[in-house]
Parts: sequence; C-alpha cells; structure tokens
Amino acid sequence: MAKTYTYPDKSLWQSILQRPTHKSEDLQNTVKEIFNAIAFKGDEALKEFTFKFDKVQMDSLLVSEAEFVEAENILNLDLKLAIQTAYQNIKKFHEAQKPKDEYVHIIEGIDCWRKSTPIDKVGLYVPGGTAPLFSTVLMLGIPAVIAGCEQIILCTPPNKEGKIHPAILYAAKYVGVHAVYKVGGIQAIGALTIGTETIPGVYKIFGPGNQYVTAAKQMASLQGVAIDMPAGPSEVLVFADGSGDADFIASDLLSQAEHGVDSQVVFVTTHEAMIKKVQLAVEQQLEKLPRKEIAEKALQNSLYILLKSDEDALKLINEYAPEHLILCSLNEEYFIQNLQNAGSVFLGNYTPESAGDYASGTNHTLPTNGYARSYSGVSLDSYFKKITFQKITTKGIQLLGKTIEIMAENECLEAHKNAVSIRLKKINDQ
Amino acid sequence: MAKTYTYPDKSLWQSILQRPTHKSEDLQNTVKEIFNAIAFKGDEALKEFTFKFDKVQMDSLLVSEAEFVEAENILNLDLKLAIQTAYQNIKKFHEAQKPKDEYVHIIEGIDCWRKSTPIDKVGLYVPGGTAPLFSTVLMLGIPAVIAGCEQIILCTPPNKEGKIHPAILYAAKYVGVHAVYKVGGIQAIGALTIGTETIPGVYKIFGPGNQYVTAAKQMASLQGVAIDMPAGPSEVLVFADGSGDADFIASDLLSQAEHGVDSQVVFVTTHEAMIKKVQLAVEQQLEKLPRKEIAEKALQNSLYILLKSDEDALKLINEYAPEHLILCSLNEEYFIQNLQNAGSVFLGNYTPESAGDYASGTNHTLPTNGYARSYSGVSLDSYFKKITFQKITTKGIQLLGKTIEIMAENECLEAHKNAVSIRLKKINDQ
Repeated sequence: MAKTYTYPDKSLWQSILQRPTHKSEDLQNTVKEIFNAIAFKGDEALKEFTFKFDKVQMDSLLVSEAEFVEAENILNLDLKLAIQTAYQNIKKFHEAQKPKDEYVHIIEGIDCWRKSTPIDKVGLYVPGGTAPLFSTVLMLGIPAVIAGCEQIILCTPPNKEGKIHPAILYAAKYVGVHAVYKVGGIQAIGALTIGTETIPGVYKIFGPGNQYVTAAKQMASLQGVAIDMPAGPSEVLVFADGSGDADFIASDLLSQAEHGVDSQVVFVTTHEAMIKKVQLAVEQQLEKLPRKEIAEKALQNSLYILLKSDEDALKLINEYAPEHLILCSLNEEYFIQNLQNAGSVFLGNYTPESAGDYASGTNHTLPTNGYARSYSGVSLDSYFKKITFQKITTKGIQLLGKTIEIMAENECLEAHKNAVSIRLKKINDQ
Repeated sequence: MAKTYTYPDKSLWQSILQRPTHKSEDLQNTVKEIFNAIAFKGDEALKEFTFKFDKVQMDSLLVSEAEFVEAENILNLDLKLAIQTAYQNIKKFHEAQKPKDEYVHIIEGIDCWRKSTPIDKVGLYVPGGTAPLFSTVLMLGIPAVIAGCEQIILCTPPNKEGKIHPAILYAAKYVGVHAVYKVGGIQAIGALTIGTETIPGVYKIFGPGNQYVTAAKQMASLQGVAIDMPAGPSEVLVFADGSGDADFIASDLLSQAEHGVDSQVVFVTTHEAMIKKVQLAVEQQLEKLPRKEIAEKALQNSLYILLKSDEDALKLINEYAPEHLILCSLNEEYFIQNLQNAGSVFLGNYTPESAGDYASGTNHTLPTNGYARSYSGVSLDSYFKKITFQKITTKGIQLLGKTIEIMAENECLEAHKNAVSIRLKKINDQ
C-alpha cells in the first residue's frame, strides 16, 4: 500500500514528494452566487442556505445566553478541566509573542517607529461535521483576545436540531469570544465578508474548512478581507534515526492519517531496519482504530524514504516543507539549527503531534501544502498589523531634504520634490 | 472639481469615503494563457511576450556584470550619493525589526519556542514605464538582504533598446540583490511563480505594478507562491487643524495626485478656513507641475471634509484606513494613541510623505484600498516565517497526557489519543 524508496537520487525527490493538486475553480460560481444572495438578502439568504445545506430551519442565527448556560451545564467536568488546562498553556505561549514597538532615531531631527495595533474585527470559522472542533476555538480565539481585537465573532454550522455542540460553546465562552453565530460553509464566510443585519462584516477571517470554505475564503481575500492562510490537506513528516521508537512513530503517522483520506504521511529514516519496524507497527495499530477506513486510504499515499545521511534528510525536509515535523534524532541540534522550512516541530520520542494539536501551547493552525516555505502558522502576529510613524524637525528636513529632492527628481516625480523644496524655502525665508 | 463636505453626518461617511472598485476578472484568462505558455516553453515564452509587449527582441534575460559596471559608470554622482544616504536610513530602520526567538517553559517537562527563519527564495518586481523606480529596489531589497534570504532576484522590464535604467541596476547592486532579469509584466510574475531555465521560481513575490501585474500576482498566490499584499491605487489622507501650513498640505496632496489618475486624495480639517486656503494653494502649485494633467484628473475625485472635532476626525481616519496619513495637529498625541488603521503616518508640518517614500527609513510599500485595517506594510517581517518547536519529556507527557487524551477522544480522533496513550503505557511499563 505505502510506497517505499531506498536511497532515491536527489533528482527524483521533487516528483516523489509531489503533493496532490486540488482544483477549486469549479466552486467559484457557487461561491459567487451565494455571496451575491447574501449581499442582496442578508440574513434571509443565510437562513435559506442553512436550510438547503444543513437541513435545518433557523429562527435565530445568534447563540443566546441561555444556550451558553445550557452548554456549560451539560458538558462533562473532565472535558471542561481539559479545556481549561489547554487554555492556560496556549495562553502562556501566545502571550510571549506580544509585539514590542521599535523606536529608531535615524539621524538628527528624524525619528521613525513602528506600533502594533490589533485588527479591530476578526471572524473565526469552526467547521461542523462528525466531531466538534473545540480545540480550533481555543487556537483561534485565545490569540484574538490577547491581541485585544475589539470584535471577535465565531461562525459554526448548526446540526440538524439547529444546535451547536456544547464543547464549542463552552470553549468560545471560556476564551472570551464576543458572539457565536449558527451558520456554516460558504454562507458563513460570505456573511463575515459582506456583513448582514445580524452578523457584522470583519477585516480578517481565520479557520479551517473543506473545499467550499476554502473557495469562499479565496473570494473573501479578493474582496478585500484578509484571511489567515491558504488551506490544503494536513500532513506530517516523521524523521527518525535508530533512536526512534517504532510504536510511537506509527502512532504519530496514524494520527495524521485519521484526519482525512487526503492526509499526507511521510516517514524518513537513515536506518534501514526502521522502515519494516514502523510499517509493522502501523499495521498492528491500524486494526484497532475507529477511523480505520479513513486512515487506510490516507496510508495508500504514504511514503517511506530511506536516506544515506542526516544531511540528506535535512535537505529533503527543507524541500518538502512539512506542516508538522517530528524529529527523533541523536543529532537533534543539527536539525534545529539548519531547519529552514516547516510549520511546527516536535522533538524526541515523547513529543507527539497530538500535544501541539491540543494542549502544549503552540498553535495548530499551520501552513500545509508546502506553504511553510513562505508562511508562518497562526500566532499572535496574525491578529495585529503594524503602523509606521515618523516625525521630522526643521533640522531633519534640512539634513535629508537634498537627498529626497534628488531621488524624486530622478523618478520624474516633481510634486514629490516640491513637497520638500517648499518646506526648505520656508525655513530659509525665516 | 474636488468635492467638499461640511460636517457630513456619520451615516454618510461610508459612501463619501467609498473608493472606486476595480475589476480584474477580465484579465484572468490572459494571465492563465501567459502562465501556461511559460510552463510549457520557459525562456522562449518570456522572450516572445517581451517582444510582443515591450517591443524588443532579447537575446539574454540576465543582466550581465558588464551592464552593472556600465550603469555605475554612467550614473551621476549626486544620485549615487542620494541612494547611499537613503540606503543607510532604510537599513537602520529595518535592522531594528530583527525578530527575537521566544522560549517559553510551559510546565515541567514541556518547552515551546518560536524561531524566525528567512524565506529562502524571494522575487522582487520593479515596474517599468516613464520613471525608473529605483526607490522600490531599495525598499524591497534592503529588508531581503537583512533577513538573509538565500536567493534574492529582481525582475524589471527592459526599454525598447533592451536596457534597464542605470539607477535601478546601481541600486540593485548596491543593496545586494543576487540577480536582475530583464522581463516585466505578467510574464515576469509567471517566471517567478513557475521558474524557467534562466529565472528560478521563488517562494514569495514582492512589488507594485499595474493591473496586469496585480492580476498575475493574484494567480501566483493561488498557485502556492506568497505575495507581499494585494494592490490598489495609492492614497493620502491629510488631517490638519489650524496649526497646519496650507502650502505644505497642498504640496503633499499634489505629490499623491501626481502618482496616477486613480490616486486617492483626502483632506480633513476641523478648521473651516483651512479648506479654502488649501484649495487655493493646490490650484497655484498645480500650474507648475510637469505631471499636471495626471494630478488634475486625480484631484477631480479628491475630497475636502470639514468635521466638528478631533474625535470625529479620528473616527473618520480609522474608518477610511489610509495608506498614508499626514497629521498636523496640536493634539498629536491623542491621534497617535488612538489611531487604529493606517499604513504609515507623517507627523507635523516638516514631515512630508516624500520623506518616507524615499529616504527617512520607513518602507514605502504600504497597504492601500483600506487594507490597512488588516495588513501591515512591507517590513523585515515580510521576509521571515516563524517555525514553532516543542520538546516534551516523559515527565511532561505524564503531566499533560490525560488532558490531550480527553480532548482527542471528544473530538473523535482516537489515533490522536493513542499517540499519547502508547507513550504513557511505555513509561508505566518501565
């Protein structure tokens, strides 16, 4: 089922590591139609699409205070405490990311600085489906609250009874999200982009989703609303030398595989014996999984790659740019120092990806599909934008004025030059 | 020609401040065709499109060492020195933005941290046209070099003699750009996205451009290559109370207006007399400008808005989210503290926008079109991505394991739970 490569030539790496391409073009017309309907009919359109896609007739889209109270009452204590523990750790890690303003005295009379300000209005999207993704509420909501965004709203689709899973509502309330709306899919992203009577439009949209949500987020970004990052199927690359534990590695590969049939699972090693051991452990553990069918399909595209050296492994990792990288190596420091492209890294045998997915503190919203070459995962930074300031005195403009005039003149922008000349003249005339 | 509003009601602000909408859809097919041709024919396609659009037959796309030497020889000394001065200031400001890694000890046995790594391959685009935009070379190239990007390449269209303006070549060499290619427009962005025999594909593309370049950058971002930010026409909002100098303000409005006929020019004041004064000064200064025709057209859409109070002015500024904001106010600190949305801010009578456009140190690549609500301008940050790391010991997983298990179980991800359980079991069995 999985493909195994023994010492593949570097010239083949690119084709071996090729991710499946996803076409989203066909959805653009659907997205446009739904966005247009929302622009035209507002809430009414949201309710119509919710009836059509989620099979439920909604009277109100806003989650009421009574619904939050009910959620808190019915959620079991163990899960509440787990959410609270995860909250503490995630908060601690993201609080350390608070931006500092930089003040720079450039030359006499010229000071420049940069100030971080929170994005006023952010929209968080949490997908529906079989499982309630309350962990995503934590990952998107906690940094929004730390950043101090003025309006933090969350959309998530209702189930057939028109309800939201209590764990999602509990997490949203606990984190400090300001309002939760029962709407999902393209129509949720449309509402966050355009705004309706009930749901205010936002400046940036965060959150995962299926191909419909992804296509809708693309449209949002073309319409001037920022998005967290482009989406793709989740992926893990595990590298282990002989120091890795085959059972642990298998459990990590399987936790990636159970995400979806398009999950990308890659195992790289410099120790030939590891491949058989890991494959055997995967087969054994797979049998007991409730999501066996999904994992099995994902594993059909999994890769096992044997390489000659740590240097080769590092090169391959940097070329693939995995969303998640698990590293079990006696040469750990070498990899840490020279790693260029990855979303989030898990070091050693006792650091499973699940820790970062839920509770250790790092964010689980990460760049997939090779985007780790140029994108960071969601962090506190994602909720801020930075404004530059400058203040120049008469002395400063006297010192720098000539430089600006010469440059503006050579770019044929005479009015730019004149904005300096007119000031210099007034100083000289005084 | 300009529109003047006296104490407009807040309910009207949105429509008054409405920016013109730009449709780029018609270009998508052209962009697709050109990208496909590049994917299929590489350099040959680039040369064909350069012949078609730039009317010149190119033998080689790469700027040679001899061409750099020639540029240095023919460029006049004044301009060289001005470029060097601007270089120093821009470098000083951007060096202060160097990211610091954050190490966080979460709980016993769990450490998480974040490390900034430069984006390996970046492509800078500098438009052609009537003026040589060497200042853009500085603004995009300096932070790329400070960040330590491994491959920094630049594309810019050749003139009809197949040459690049010496100021662009001089600035590129001085900054430390690794290679310059003589290709522009959609085909340049296509080459940077896809890669050809001569021009390597990159991970992120920076730089301004016309509607063709903008459409091509949109396509690049859909194909997995990051871009600096979405583009729109340049804009300035000047706010002045009675402390503003009408002549200076007029010169700033005009330097925005000369950029292009679609430039957005807004003047806001709390002092009624300022409006007439500024309008008069604009009319006088306009007469002497070589780019008078362009500026005149842009001014037809300019706005003069009289408001009752600084509070109102602040609200309007935050709602408009100007790319450039010039502030001449006795109440300066109030605006600085409460400003939420702007790209770059220029404080006081002796701080013209031209200073930041060229030489004071701040970057001139800024969010237009209201994107300042969610985007920052280009900075050193734009050339880094951040990787999170975590390391958990046996003690750490024993402390946090139960939390992860409960959360994974409640999200119906049994394999995620098992990745923890299997580790806890091994610890207990030892």
